[in-house]
Amino acid sequence: MGERYNALVEHTREINNINAAAGLLGWDQQVNMPPGGAMARARQLATLARIGHELLVSDETARLIEDAEREIDGMAYDSDEASLVRVFKQDYQENTRLPSAYVAEFTRVTSEAHEVWAHARANDDFAHFRPALERIIALVIQGADYLGYQDHPYSAMLERYERGLTTTQVKDIFDGHKPRLVSLIAAVREHSDRVNDAVLHQVYDIDAQRAFAMDVVQAFGFDLARGHQAVAVHPFCSGTSRGDVRITTRFNAEWLNPALFGMMHEAGHAMYEQGYAEHLDGTALAGGTSLGVHESQSRMWENMIGRSRGFWTWAFPKLQAQFPAQLGNVDLDTFYRAINKVAPSFIRVEADEATYNLHIMLRFEIETGLITGQIKVADLPEEWNQRFEDMLGIAPTSDRVGVLQDIHWSAGLFGYFPTYALGNLLAAQYYEQAVAAHPNIPDDILQGKFDTLLGWLRENIHAHGRKFTADELTRKVTGEGINSAPYIAYLERKYSEVYGL
Amino acid sequence: MGERYNALVEHTREINNINAAAGLLGWDQQVNMPPGGAMARARQLATLARIGHELLVSDETARLIEDAEREIDGMAYDSDEASLVRVFKQDYQENTRLPSAYVAEFTRVTSEAHEVWAHARANDDFAHFRPALERIIALVIQGADYLGYQDHPYSAMLERYERGLTTTQVKDIFDGHKPRLVSLIAAVREHSDRVNDAVLHQVYDIDAQRAFAMDVVQAFGFDLARGHQAVAVHPFCSGTSRGDVRITTRFNAEWLNPALFGMMHEAGHAMYEQGYAEHLDGTALAGGTSLGVHESQSRMWENMIGRSRGFWTWAFPKLQAQFPAQLGNVDLDTFYRAINKVAPSFIRVEADEATYNLHIMLRFEIETGLITGQIKVADLPEEWNQRFEDMLGIAPTSDRVGVLQDIHWSAGLFGYFPTYALGNLLAAQYYEQAVAAHPNIPDDILQGKFDTLLGWLRENIHAHGRKFTADELTRKVTGEGINSAPYIAYLERKYSEVYGL
Repeated sequence: MGERYNALVEHTREINNINAAAGLLGWDQQVNMPPGGAMARARQLATLARIGHELLVSDETARLIEDAEREIDGMAYDSDEASLVRVFKQDYQENTRLPSAYVAEFTRVTSEAHEVWAHARANDDFAHFRPALERIIALVIQGADYLGYQDHPYSAMLERYERGLTTTQVKDIFDGHKPRLVSLIAAVREHSDRVNDAVLHQVYDIDAQRAFAMDVVQAFGFDLARGHQAVAVHPFCSGTSRGDVRITTRFNAEWLNPALFGMMHEAGHAMYEQGYAEHLDGTALAGGTSLGVHESQSRMWENMIGRSRGFWTWAFPKLQAQFPAQLGNVDLDTFYRAINKVAPSFIRVEADEATYNLHIMLRFEIETGLITGQIKVADLPEEWNQRFEDMLGIAPTSDRVGVLQDIHWSAGLFGYFPTYALGNLLAAQYYEQAVAAHPNIPDDILQGKFDTLLGWLRENIHAHGRKFTADELTRKVTGEGINSAPYIAYLERKYSEVYGL
Repeated sequence: MGERYNALVEHTREINNINAAAGLLGWDQQVNMPPGGAMARARQLATLARIGHELLVSDETARLIEDAEREIDGMAYDSDEASLVRVFKQDYQENTRLPSAYVAEFTRVTSEAHEVWAHARANDDFAHFRPALERIIALVIQGADYLGYQDHPYSAMLERYERGLTTTQVKDIFDGHKPRLVSLIAAVREHSDRVNDAVLHQVYDIDAQRAFAMDVVQAFGFDLARGHQAVAVHPFCSGTSRGDVRITTRFNAEWLNPALFGMMHEAGHAMYEQGYAEHLDGTALAGGTSLGVHESQSRMWENMIGRSRGFWTWAFPKLQAQFPAQLGNVDLDTFYRAINKVAPSFIRVEADEATYNLHIMLRFEIETGLITGQIKVADLPEEWNQRFEDMLGIAPTSDRVGVLQDIHWSAGLFGYFPTYALGNLLAAQYYEQAVAAHPNIPDDILQGKFDTLLGWLRENIHAHGRKFTADELTRKVTGEGINSAPYIAYLERKYSEVYGL
């Protein structure tokens, strides 16, 4: 390519280098940093964020984009060159539309709100959080005006996490499967006695848990020559390049699930980050398509593979060998049903794969209502509890396990939640395509072979990095847009069998 | 203080934040990073180095210094304000005197030379390294001209690691104790059969080694609420602030020394970094005085305390309890003599405290000879081996364990070695002062109490951060300049007793 385009790529590399450094500082804060380092670390992160932001919104960026646009004129939409200029221009615009005084105010208010929210949650005192949340929502609405939108101010928020997605689309997708989810959950509840997960709640040595889970994710394809695993209170996936992708794990010595399924989940994210095309590394196209597509990878490996009967046909004897005292006398069917127990519960992050999307729909309805003013902050606890009971059949026993449970709103993260639910839907859509292309995938999994599936994901999802929007990618891969049909069909098929419905 | 001075402090904080981030990336590279991350990490570090350097040598820096200088005019030399402006101005000048084209060339040549040196060392092939070393020395000489010097071009090099120190001073200090060191070593050699260190070479469980050594360094005063320990191939001390100071350790399952004394050594550095005054954190005065003063702290805890009979009177029963099979039948005297075995050997990093400074004197003589042209690179192996035998009584059996052993020259680090030897001298000078001020220190150590000593170091050495030069600090603390008398007296006293001379 010409020198103008190359200059732009170099510029995105500089920004990427700074962001990667900040990412490592953030990772380290969760994994290694002693408590005494907190204040200085916040200052170090602020400096890197400021420098990265200044580089991104600089006049130089505008000039480089303009120059490169002229140079690449006429190139195909999906070429590396056209994609990089297009995606990076969107990054630039998104970051220049918010005035810096607004960004500073937003940062100040949400930073203060964090403590207020934590205090309110700890004391089950929504009224304490209310004024802060009202201020945040006013800022979010103002931000939507700066950013611009077509159908709905909430779309301006969605755009930041899932480029190109509108409120109308999300509403259609959610409305399209909500009734069937509600019915499924109601039917399962009538037969809740058919599944018992007591076998998962035993003493499981943490080193042995780690060894088994690491074997599993390496069998999936998580590459330790380009990856790393560590312990952290809140599991996440991070990294500094496609050659250095890190997962963290939380262990519970008396419960198998957090580490085992948590590691599969994070490895799903990590394999995506290890899988974008090598020449995109360090550029504006490095990374994954969007939060929703990223979540499709973690959910696929955690749930569609990691909670499948096929996978455990291969893996359960190994798990039994690792934990003979705990599982030697447990049969595969009992274990399989235990890990697939469905039960409405109050806390989103502990929800099973069948109830999960209902937790998200609740938040979507409330967030859009708050943005339009149809729901008042003062009425939130009541709104939350009533809707929760309508969907999941149980009423939250406190605001602490209800409207106060998530950190997101205190941080100003409106529009973020829907991406979690989209991940579930996309996982089913993509998996269906992978199996259509390679009908041997289910048989492979019975043998503990995952390379055909991972190979398909690499080629069809991972390789593109940030080139496409979730909608574009999904149409390219499946021939249609994001939709819930494969996911709801998968759930109904699976849980009818598990619960004998 | 006035706003101009405060603006300067803020500026140094920004630079410090970037350097701290780069420091963490470097630490992580040695501790966590998977091999696949290496190339991207090098680019990330290069970006941070470039940004930090640009900020340091910017016109803004010059303006801020000038403004602040006017504002603080008349303040005491040792005030925070005068010290910060003075020290930061020296940083600025040091970094602006070298033209950027020169710095780029130096970086390129030394970066290439690293591989060449590693290959030469692996193959015991000095001729392979010779052309690269000749180029480096030419660049070093050119650099001395850019930097300027009074007595000797080598002083320009010394200045970068030990501000204010001249070649003449180092020569006087070294010449002052070399003959007594040579005699001491020769005397010890005649009685080498009097010490046997076989007890140290047994199987020692690594987790138990770690537990014991961590207990020791925490007893010394290494604060884990502001500190961290990890495993690395090459032990070092690093950190991101005085609230986050990190040591790394190398373990050998069949040899007690590397982890035990290595951890004491690094903890000595770490306690210094945890000990400068809190209000200096993040500014241009954060850190230690110089490499030599830093090394005085690591050497004092490792050798003067960690290899003392007093310390082991307290610690040996604990070590025996940790390793009953290995040490249950060993008496304190045998153990004490074992850890104080003196034996001339070829490799500097494995040298004992009595022979160590001779290794440094050899390098100092050769480096000054190379800079003046009195020694030719072609003659290096012969020069090295002859001088080595003259000092230490044994002749290197290959260049691999001779002139090729150190990484420093391939990296262009001329003038660095003397700081190691100064550390030994300063440790003895400072310890003497501490005991003069608090005669109970030796008795405290017998009880495993180190707070009086650490408190004295905090107040007299650590608290000042980078305010003074090593010479200034040493005069302030001891009433005289750097000198070898306390160190050589300490060695003669100790080893006469150990070897019954």
